[in-house]
Amino acid sequence: MFIDDTIAAIATASGEAGIGIVRISGPKSIEIIDVIFEANNNKKLSQQQQRRITYGHIVDPDNMEKIDEVLVVYMRAPFTYTKEDIVEINCHGGMIPVKRILQLVLRKGARLAEAGEFTKRAFLNGRIDLAQAEAVMDLISAKTEKGFDVAFDQLEGALSKRVEGMRKVVLELLAHIEVSIDFSEEDVDEVTLDYLLQKSIELEAKMSNLLETADTGKILREGLSTVIVGKPNVGKSSLLNSLLRESRAIVTEVPGTTRDVIEEQLNIQGIPLKIIDTAGIRETDDIVERIGVNKSKEFFNKADLVIFMLDASRELTKDDIEIIEMLQDKKIIVIINKTDLPIKIDMEKIHQLIGEKRIISISLKEEVGLDELEKTLVDIVYKGDIKTKNNLMVTNIRHKDALEKAINSLRDGIEAVKRQMPMDFIEVDYKNVWDYLGEITGETVGEDLIDHIFANFCIGK
Amino acid sequence: MFIDDTIAAIATASGEAGIGIVRISGPKSIEIIDVIFEANNNKKLSQQQQRRITYGHIVDPDNMEKIDEVLVVYMRAPFTYTKEDIVEINCHGGMIPVKRILQLVLRKGARLAEAGEFTKRAFLNGRIDLAQAEAVMDLISAKTEKGFDVAFDQLEGALSKRVEGMRKVVLELLAHIEVSIDFSEEDVDEVTLDYLLQKSIELEAKMSNLLETADTGKILREGLSTVIVGKPNVGKSSLLNSLLRESRAIVTEVPGTTRDVIEEQLNIQGIPLKIIDTAGIRETDDIVERIGVNKSKEFFNKADLVIFMLDASRELTKDDIEIIEMLQDKKIIVIINKTDLPIKIDMEKIHQLIGEKRIISISLKEEVGLDELEKTLVDIVYKGDIKTKNNLMVTNIRHKDALEKAINSLRDGIEAVKRQMPMDFIEVDYKNVWDYLGEITGETVGEDLIDHIFANFCIGK
Repeated sequence: MFIDDTIAAIATASGEAGIGIVRISGPKSIEIIDVIFEANNNKKLSQQQQRRITYGHIVDPDNMEKIDEVLVVYMRAPFTYTKEDIVEINCHGGMIPVKRILQLVLRKGARLAEAGEFTKRAFLNGRIDLAQAEAVMDLISAKTEKGFDVAFDQLEGALSKRVEGMRKVVLELLAHIEVSIDFSEEDVDEVTLDYLLQKSIELEAKMSNLLETADTGKILREGLSTVIVGKPNVGKSSLLNSLLRESRAIVTEVPGTTRDVIEEQLNIQGIPLKIIDTAGIRETDDIVERIGVNKSKEFFNKADLVIFMLDASRELTKDDIEIIEMLQDKKIIVIINKTDLPIKIDMEKIHQLIGEKRIISISLKEEVGLDELEKTLVDIVYKGDIKTKNNLMVTNIRHKDALEKAINSLRDGIEAVKRQMPMDFIEVDYKNVWDYLGEITGETVGEDLIDHIFANFCIGK
Repeated sequence: MFIDDTIAAIATASGEAGIGIVRISGPKSIEIIDVIFEANNNKKLSQQQQRRITYGHIVDPDNMEKIDEVLVVYMRAPFTYTKEDIVEINCHGGMIPVKRILQLVLRKGARLAEAGEFTKRAFLNGRIDLAQAEAVMDLISAKTEKGFDVAFDQLEGALSKRVEGMRKVVLELLAHIEVSIDFSEEDVDEVTLDYLLQKSIELEAKMSNLLETADTGKILREGLSTVIVGKPNVGKSSLLNSLLRESRAIVTEVPGTTRDVIEEQLNIQGIPLKIIDTAGIRETDDIVERIGVNKSKEFFNKADLVIFMLDASRELTKDDIEIIEMLQDKKIIVIINKTDLPIKIDMEKIHQLIGEKRIISISLKEEVGLDELEKTLVDIVYKGDIKTKNNLMVTNIRHKDALEKAINSLRDGIEAVKRQMPMDFIEVDYKNVWDYLGEITGETVGEDLIDHIFANFCIGK
């Protein structure tokens, strides 16, 4: 794939801010900036030192209109983000300056960059591998510090190195297999088979260990999608507010796909929670009837976790029981709120209905029980085992899939070895392991998949 | 006011994006970056060339933990934005990296910058005057290209030069007045008075011309706040959608102070419209009863313009008439929609009720009449006189107030001259003109006002 065009995009988030950046990458970058930039010292940018911040104005050469006051820098290939010539224009923040400068840059010969295209070029030009490229997007969209740390280590190559280590083992096994195929036409080589089996079992254990990090990794990357349900006035909004207050870190409001659903992002001990606030939007005396059984199931199914709230001072109703029944196969936490009031709820019945699931008694009014809720959330995510120091995780669903396929192929291989199948038969499985692992670092993926992966990036990266 | 501390803030908008910037300004900037930055060439940043982009990592020196991969640059005072030493750290976009780096910078001795504090320092250190500093914020928050152009010219000094020109005239007149006071104890000098009168009348005309730009200027800066009202099903949402579709430029959704009110920002021929979408939020069969007469008046009073929609195929109701009566003293446009259907509405009655106000017949279904609506909007804003080439406008309400006070003082002065009042009496008025004009460029404003002005800026600028 030969890249010869020049791309441009706005590299900063949109919004009112001090600085906005328009970034250009490709062979014509410097030619374009020379046409539209007037340095205060009257020299062309290309005549200035590279990597040196130069002050001046972006001027439309067609009508000599000044567009903005800017700081500009150019960096020569190959020691740049994309390994291409790069120009960065730092202008005033806000919507108009970046938009206008970008339009001018496009008019002068650049093409609007696709989502993730700068990073895609860094990958295609061989500066980083695919897992590292994907880490860039995870860094940007990280919701907690832990999520960021994991992505950062992935960018610095931690996952790639681990996967490459595994591939090296597979390559060595493949070499043994091929020697066997070449030299022993009839008998299967016992020594080779023993060696293969032993090495494969070790490798399978390592791969399984890595795969086990995937559930936690996914939550750290994407957040634990949580729905709070319960009858009106059981304290859903109060719970949310209490959690938001506890959440020391980032709290933002992300409007959902429709304007109706508001998702609160919060951070409980490093775990990013996406709480879908059913309070206030679907509030009704008969929640089940209101949203309909099918609709509620759909609603619950989208969630990783359902927090079902009950009021200790009121008796169980038909609605409560219906909701509990609907949640049978979901990961749920049952919260009994208002334990400061006289207890009227039938706890035995609840235990009977809920079965093995977790029940936490709290009083939001008296601020009792929130600690236990937080602890329970952490337990669920880390399965009781917080390896806080370990930042090597599989966070990406694509990596998880590839790793699972690699493990399955390896298990097939192990089975084939045990059954002393012909070596060329065994070889197929090990080649699959090799290919699937290569998908993680991008060595064995096609152009379509690459396009698809980068399409999920944000523009300007 | 002596500034000796070092400030830091995030200079880019928050959100997922390619690049985020943390900016540090003040005497300790370079000392701080040297402690937390590890260049790939192992040299301290201060040992590198200034203004040169250097690649490396931000590392927490207390635990040697790598925080992010960055490009860093430092710029030595005085040729910087603030006229102080400045460091800019370009890191990955997204919430975590900028936040973490900022926290580290603060821990190492910087103070979190207040809103607008970088620009305030540029003003206090004498790089720009107050009107220019205010233009920075207007640039960032500009909603249309025209609004940006006006702010940009103001930043480049267009308004300041004009005001300084006026002040020069005032200063010259004050010199004449003082000479008169010093030398003619008894008689008022006829020649001086004639000269004063003639010059003052010329000046007053110039100042009034400038003041006349203020209405348009305010709209360009803040947007024309518009409310669409009308009974359900007259086509309010359709109108909004049609306008949004027409609006080629920036369209964003700005949630109001409460979650209930949604404001749509749109751009009709360069005019920024803030449309408050009453459709869907206050929709009821009896709008007047629903929101209450007082409440509706309040609602309408906040708007610069009310678009009142009627359905041509339905007869006028009591509600319609009540709304019309409530809008007597507002700037309104009446839209008669659905003119494609058989007309049942009593047009004569409407003309009689509406009086001189504008009535536009449209059919959103058949896309008839939108051009006329747009033309009417442009007419209202520019009062039929689009001076598109003129970017020198008073856009800021503070400038408008100061200019008005200056004009009033000048008129008092003219009156005093005409009445041949004593020269030391006249002098007071002219000194006031001088001071009020000086408020615009910030030469005659106190610290409190300065603090107040910059407090409205965004953080990081």
